Amino acid sequence: MEQAGNETSSGQANRIAFDDFAKVEMKIGRILSADMVEGSEKLLKLSVDFGEDSPRQVVSGIAKQFVVIGKSVQEGDEGDAEQESEIETKTISGLVGHSFVFVTNLEPRKILGLESQAMIVAGTGDAGLALMSPTIDLPPGTSLS
Amino acid sequence: MEQAGNETSSGQANRIAFDDFAKVEMKIGRILSADMVEGSEKLLKLSVDFGEDSPRQVVSGIAKQFVVIGKSVQEGDEGDAEQESEIETKTISGLVGHSFVFVTNLEPRKILGLESQAMIVAGTGDAGLALMSPTIDLPPGTSLS
Repeated sequence: MEQAGNETSSGQANRIAFDDFAKVEMKIGRILSADMVEGSEKLLKLSVDFGEDSPRQVVSGIAKQFVVIGKSVQEGDEGDAEQESEIETKTISGLVGHSFVFVTNLEPRKILGLESQAMIVAGTGDAGLALMSPTIDLPPGTSLS
Repeated sequence: MEQAGNETSSGQANRIAFDDFAKVEMKIGRILSADMVEGSEKLLKLSVDFGEDSPRQVVSGIAKQFVVIGKSVQEGDEGDAEQESEIETKTISGLVGHSFVFVTNLEPRKILGLESQAMIVAGTGDAGLALMSPTIDLPPGTSLS
C-alpha cells in the first residue's frame, strides 16, 4: 500500500501502511544499571536486558526526570561543626529493575562518544517525562505490536 | 539512509533508519468507554480520547485479558429457591479511564464491520497480555518518540 499523500476522512495527511509499522521493532527491556554520562547533565547510560546473549548499552536524555539531587553533610574530624561541608549527591531513581518500551532495530548511534544500541520510548507533558511500562510483567525481549 | 540488508556487528538483519521510525505516529490515548463486540469473544470496541475534536473508535482483540466473567444469581418471585437462575455476567475491568500507547496513523481498517481508527500497542507473556502505560500522567494526544 502507498501513502495516500492527501488528507483522508479523519483529516490525517501522514498515514502509513501496516507494513511500515511492522518494520519497527519494539521490545520490552529491563534496565540493569543506570549511570550519569560524564560531561552531560541530560544523558544517562543504561544497560538494558532484551533477553539477548548480553545486555545493550542505551544512551538517553532522560536524566532530568530520574536523577534526584540531594545534599549530604560531611562532618569534619571529631564532629567539629566548623569543619562540616555539604556535598551534592546525585541518585538515579525509578529505573533500575524496571521494564520499559524500547525501539530495538534503529541504526546504532554515537552520543558523546558512547554507542547507543536502542532507543527508549518517552513522552513529555506538564508533569515531566514519562516512560512506557507494561501493565503486567513481561519478560525482557518480549515483542510489542 | 537505506537499510543495509545484511547483518551488522550486533547481528541484526532488519535495521531501520530513524526516518522509518519517525513516520510512525504513537500517542497516548485515554479510554473513555469499552464494550464487547457482538458476535466475538475476543474483540472490544473502545472509544479513545486523543485530544482531538472527537474520540476515535478502536477495535482490538484484547477482550480475554480485560473481561471478567462472573455469575449473578437471579432470584425467583418471593425468594423461591427453585426459581433461582444463574446469569453469566461480563464486566470489563482495567480499561476505562486509563491511558495507554496507541499507533494513530495507520490506515483505518474494518473488523467485523466496525472501523478501527487506531491500534493499541500490546505484548504477550506467560502472564497474559499487557498494554503500555506512561509512568506519569500524560495528557491524551501526547506524542511519543
